[in-house]
Amino acid sequence: MTTPRYTPLAASLPATVPFVGPETQERARGAAFRARLGANESVFGPSPLAVAAMQAAAADVWMYGDPENHDLRNALAEAERVAPENVIVGEGIDGLLGYVVRLTVGPGDSVVTSDGAYPTFNYHVAGFGGALHKVPYRDDREDPQALLDKAAETGAKLIYLANPDNPMGTWHDGTVIERMIADLPDGCLLVLDEAYAHFLPSEAMPRIAADDPRVIRFRTFSKAYGMAGARVGYGIAAPGLISAFDKVRNHFGMCRISQAGALAALNDPDYMASVVAQVGWARERIAAIATANGLTPLPSATNFVTIDCGADGDFARAVLRELLARDIFVRMPFVAPQDRCIRVSAGTGADLDLLAEILPQALEAARAKS
Amino acid sequence: MTTPRYTPLAASLPATVPFVGPETQERARGAAFRARLGANESVFGPSPLAVAAMQAAAADVWMYGDPENHDLRNALAEAERVAPENVIVGEGIDGLLGYVVRLTVGPGDSVVTSDGAYPTFNYHVAGFGGALHKVPYRDDREDPQALLDKAAETGAKLIYLANPDNPMGTWHDGTVIERMIADLPDGCLLVLDEAYAHFLPSEAMPRIAADDPRVIRFRTFSKAYGMAGARVGYGIAAPGLISAFDKVRNHFGMCRISQAGALAALNDPDYMASVVAQVGWARERIAAIATANGLTPLPSATNFVTIDCGADGDFARAVLRELLARDIFVRMPFVAPQDRCIRVSAGTGADLDLLAEILPQALEAARAKS
Repeated sequence: MTTPRYTPLAASLPATVPFVGPETQERARGAAFRARLGANESVFGPSPLAVAAMQAAAADVWMYGDPENHDLRNALAEAERVAPENVIVGEGIDGLLGYVVRLTVGPGDSVVTSDGAYPTFNYHVAGFGGALHKVPYRDDREDPQALLDKAAETGAKLIYLANPDNPMGTWHDGTVIERMIADLPDGCLLVLDEAYAHFLPSEAMPRIAADDPRVIRFRTFSKAYGMAGARVGYGIAAPGLISAFDKVRNHFGMCRISQAGALAALNDPDYMASVVAQVGWARERIAAIATANGLTPLPSATNFVTIDCGADGDFARAVLRELLARDIFVRMPFVAPQDRCIRVSAGTGADLDLLAEILPQALEAARAKS
Repeated sequence: MTTPRYTPLAASLPATVPFVGPETQERARGAAFRARLGANESVFGPSPLAVAAMQAAAADVWMYGDPENHDLRNALAEAERVAPENVIVGEGIDGLLGYVVRLTVGPGDSVVTSDGAYPTFNYHVAGFGGALHKVPYRDDREDPQALLDKAAETGAKLIYLANPDNPMGTWHDGTVIERMIADLPDGCLLVLDEAYAHFLPSEAMPRIAADDPRVIRFRTFSKAYGMAGARVGYGIAAPGLISAFDKVRNHFGMCRISQAGALAALNDPDYMASVVAQVGWARERIAAIATANGLTPLPSATNFVTIDCGADGDFARAVLRELLARDIFVRMPFVAPQDRCIRVSAGTGADLDLLAEILPQALEAARAKS
């Protein structure tokens, strides 16, 4: 008998990585990127208050973090105008998605998402043996009605929807999301990934009762708060679902420094507003650079712009390769026809000056090889 | 139909917390503890180099951490004299224990541990539906032969053993562990928790080939490195098992600041040696305080001392309560007859001065009420 004896499910899984990190690419290239615009990180960084709080917390890191995340949870509840019992804090949205899938999805259970949507969600569903059903995007946006229809057809336990969407940057008005929740098949939970919601115009935000048992919303300090490396995400849902996380979560999993940083970031709304403004400016600049090069920027309510390269996936992949070869880290959608695009995160002025300089060269090289 | 629809396993689990954190207790008391000696944290703190590295990394936290933990993994491999392919880095030993259980344990699968050993391991086994079999301690130490016998009897996939042990502080010589591995039932993996191994005399360390498929060793930056709040643990095992973690782990789960801190801590062996020396001094002081109060300190190769209060569990619980009421945070073993003890983590001189002052009062109060 070989040791260890894996479960049949674990034995069947690939040893995979949902995303190859930029550091991995840099090691393979043997050179650092000059502009890091591929992971939708916030180049504008965290609030100075958050940096100071994390620096102050460093010497205290001999203590475990509070496993209840009490202070952060209460501050989030106040900021989101819900009760603390509606809030779960965890190790990024990635970690929380894993927990919600683990709580609900067993071998063969049906789950619905969009083809080309967040791979890490798919990774979790596969990791617990779920049967993942995908529907195509419609007009480069997630298609709520198709998701609902597929969920009804397959008896899905979960629907995943990101609004605004990653990797396309597009979004639906809040009323569309509200109607989608009203139309959910009986027993189906909407996993609403709002990682980019801080960039959504406030009038487009759906109004969802925190105690609605049909939906869980996920938000994060990784995007607008500029703290991707701190691994702080949170969920908003009915108290029953929130308390169920205590059945499976890594109770002492939160970094104490990250807890302190997130709390401080939350107390600096002016900084957040300034980041949202800078991101808006960067989006316009990226769109202008794309247009100047004959490409088509898609509308975006996120901290990135997805750019239609005007041909097929092979061409966009060639553009991506040429940008990477010229030290600009970007990514692109995985699935046709969205893979005709590349995805560029909001950068600093210097980052985007470099993009403006390099993109024509990358396009020329890609065209020469196609 | 209610929403969400939990898996039968998830529906059956309690919403539990393996440990109530000291902050939770402080909130319930309405007062802070004056000495934090209950969670085996390192009051001596992290290396100044680690603190500086974490402070320097704070402003860079807008970037995700490297999901491969490349630099830390390679540095650990060098320090432990194994290959990088033998090393997995994760969100504390707690997180890594969860992954190894998930990879191997399905509903009804047998797992063996000691009654009174680490509750978080048991939490993970229950969380994946495993059947946990417990054997008693023998002479306040884990009993390797009893663990082996129970594993053979139940066809266990995993045996959990902490060496040195928590909560007792006792340990087995390396040759005992080596013999135990040789005698493992076919197909049984030894989960060897070496969280406290940095405090073990080097001659007592077992010699285990890193490529041995029958064992995985877990170590941590939470104890001797003084970085419990950073959540950095690592495992050493055969490459096949190490790569299997990539099937289930939260690839982007590591805090970037923690990665930087752990790497710096690893590069400061002098500081580590000074902590081990201070812990040795603190253990002697705790033992002397216990003896002066008519109690019996157990031998320890950890950063805590377990103290036999000389009566039953009710009395030790009363002593614990009286210490807590006097602002000293300590814990105690959960299971008889080890629950006749309290467990005191290595403290600073000031912490232990306070213990010396308060312990007689706590004992007197406990005796008056019994």
